[in-house]
Amino acid sequence: MTQYKVPVIGGDGIGPEIVREGQKVLDAAGEIFGFDIDWLEFPHGADHYLETGELVSEETIKELSGYKAIYLGALGDPRLAPGILEKGILLKLRFAFDEYINLRPIKLLDGVETPLKGKTAKDIDFVVVRENTEDFYIGIGGRAKKGQKNDLLEVQRDLYSAKFGLDIETDSEEIAYQIGMISKEGTKRVMEYSYDLAAKRNNHLSSVDKANVLSDIYGFWRETFEEVGKGYPSVETDFNYVDAVTMWFVKNPEFFDVVVTPNMFGDIITDLGAMIQGGLGLAPGGNINPNGTSMFEPIHGSAPKYKGMDRANPLATIWAGALLIETLGEKEAADTIVKAIEKNILDKKVNTVDMGGSAKCSEVGTDVARLVRELG
Amino acid sequence: MTQYKVPVIGGDGIGPEIVREGQKVLDAAGEIFGFDIDWLEFPHGADHYLETGELVSEETIKELSGYKAIYLGALGDPRLAPGILEKGILLKLRFAFDEYINLRPIKLLDGVETPLKGKTAKDIDFVVVRENTEDFYIGIGGRAKKGQKNDLLEVQRDLYSAKFGLDIETDSEEIAYQIGMISKEGTKRVMEYSYDLAAKRNNHLSSVDKANVLSDIYGFWRETFEEVGKGYPSVETDFNYVDAVTMWFVKNPEFFDVVVTPNMFGDIITDLGAMIQGGLGLAPGGNINPNGTSMFEPIHGSAPKYKGMDRANPLATIWAGALLIETLGEKEAADTIVKAIEKNILDKKVNTVDMGGSAKCSEVGTDVARLVRELG
Ligand SMILES: CC(C)[C@H](C(=O)O)[C@@H](O)C(=O)O
Ligand SMILES: CC(C)[C@H](C(=O)O)[C@@H](O)C(=O)O
Repeated sequence: MTQYKVPVIGGDGIGPEIVREGQKVLDAAGEIFGFDIDWLEFPHGADHYLETGELVSEETIKELSGYKAIYLGALGDPRLAPGILEKGILLKLRFAFDEYINLRPIKLLDGVETPLKGKTAKDIDFVVVRENTEDFYIGIGGRAKKGQKNDLLEVQRDLYSAKFGLDIETDSEEIAYQIGMISKEGTKRVMEYSYDLAAKRNNHLSSVDKANVLSDIYGFWRETFEEVGKGYPSVETDFNYVDAVTMWFVKNPEFFDVVVTPNMFGDIITDLGAMIQGGLGLAPGGNINPNGTSMFEPIHGSAPKYKGMDRANPLATIWAGALLIETLGEKEAADTIVKAIEKNILDKKVNTVDMGGSAKCSEVGTDVARLVRELG
Repeated sequence: MTQYKVPVIGGDGIGPEIVREGQKVLDAAGEIFGFDIDWLEFPHGADHYLETGELVSEETIKELSGYKAIYLGALGDPRLAPGILEKGILLKLRFAFDEYINLRPIKLLDGVETPLKGKTAKDIDFVVVRENTEDFYIGIGGRAKKGQKNDLLEVQRDLYSAKFGLDIETDSEEIAYQIGMISKEGTKRVMEYSYDLAAKRNNHLSSVDKANVLSDIYGFWRETFEEVGKGYPSVETDFNYVDAVTMWFVKNPEFFDVVVTPNMFGDIITDLGAMIQGGLGLAPGGNINPNGTSMFEPIHGSAPKYKGMDRANPLATIWAGALLIETLGEKEAADTIVKAIEKNILDKKVNTVDMGGSAKCSEVGTDVARLVRELG
């Protein structure tokens, strides 16, 4: 019997209850496929922060770094200002473990309703690979005002004034700025991952940028995409401006196989992707460091108003669990879990309210676990 | 008889032929509503650039600045690298005339098919106000490499290295960066415009940001949104993360009345908006400086492969013409043009191929002009 140790961060709102269902399903898969998971619970989230002042400490990070995969529920609490938990825990962990791949399958499961006319499961089946540690997510920015001393701002203000013939040296004028950066190594590794993935799927890789306007950063992105592509002559490629990508997701999702995108655009287009695959209740995400600690989560938020009501849809989290177990090497178990999710939906018997049913969150988890045993 | 002078830049690809149909319709509206337009043709675009080396010269800008509204077809040519014409002409004019409002009505006309299930004309009727002169469109960015001398880069590299404990001082490492900036005045004026517009419509204004991650720039945006809002107590407001906005556009477009957005996110969400209102063939845009020179265009590109074939859909351009004439003060003419477009679509007799018909571009223009005379 293979033994795995998996840290679990239930988090806020509905997080703990949905992740519990994911654990239930993974345990069932373990029974069938011969592995056992030792779950290590971590208390991080809003309550823990408000009680102890800890978002995620260096010790916690050190401890978590000993494991290959973390299971995360959801973060976010109305008592805290926007950004505190997101940056202090979620982005912190993504960066700390250098989880440079954010993997988001956009797959319309059989039986799930998409909001798009005339599209069926065969039309919506692609994977978005979002770069996850650079770009505009590096958190560098600030404000400038006349009289304030800051080298970085001075230089930038001069550039800005010169470029637009503006005089921003007035008392009333204030500006805010944000910097995005990408590195050669950081861009190369996500490209390599994406080309490899495309080579394993249907040999078609689409890159997203806005090289016609944000030319410095995304011109570099596009160049690197082409450079790395030389090593993959069999993969067909195209560039796409991010604005156009949102249109094609809606009009021609069947065009896509693997999509590689910078961090910020990836954030935007994967939410749109979640919607076309049937909504956030069904969209899982993996934050992956192929040689280190990865982290799996549903891409939806913590829905604080449903906390503790046992009515949230656990399917995205269960699916994230499938991605997790696949990363640990249990591909068959992962495939069976996705099939069980699909069967649960097709059966139309045990579904949560958002899917048109009336079942509880825990009942859906139990049903998917049963199906895993049945199909496995 | 009121007399207007309107500069026309047909531009590239299908630009000249679609803008010609727009002129035809505006001329018809003039006959009915008692105005006459003197069209001033400008040759700018790829051919002109390749022949003369001029994108848009300072003299041209000076000349254009004498008019209230410019009519633009489309720019973009496969012979030139991405960004050349976009930055050299389109963005250049937007910035030169300080056209700080990019106005994009997202309205599903009666008879037009949306790709969204279960949505009809009454569900999709809102306006996006995109800030048009700041944010990540200011064109400041660059690359850095060990040994390269550049003050701005030095400071940024230090910040970046310190923040992530990275050593980017190696020979092989190269980075690219991009800076976005917004100013208090620049943000205030677009907010004021948007609140005013919401007050004239249904008193609901939604702001788009990503203040939980790009906190410096969009925290400032959000603050300004709130500050300006104090002057509009009757307008209901909400903040939305850009990723969520793409979902609501697809799932709940009826939620929106007026949407105010920073430049780059605006670029993305208005293309998605165009798609839900029936496609790019139907989406007009206005680049507005309320006290200066504005510019109206379809939001689609120049479709070089259809150039000169008289088969492109001119409706977006005709609609942009309606926005133009409204800006000149001819509201009744503008409303009549939109009604004529709607009737042309409902009649299902004279439509281009993309709308399921077989008519030529020029036939559609003639038909809409006829309808303007009939309805006016
Ligand atoms: C919560 C937020 C910081 C996060 C992001 O922007 O990456 C989320 O939207 C996501 O996509 O995982
Ligand atoms: C052509 C391009 C520079 C432009 C933009 O990004 O603003 C276009 O996409 C638009 O939305 O008008």
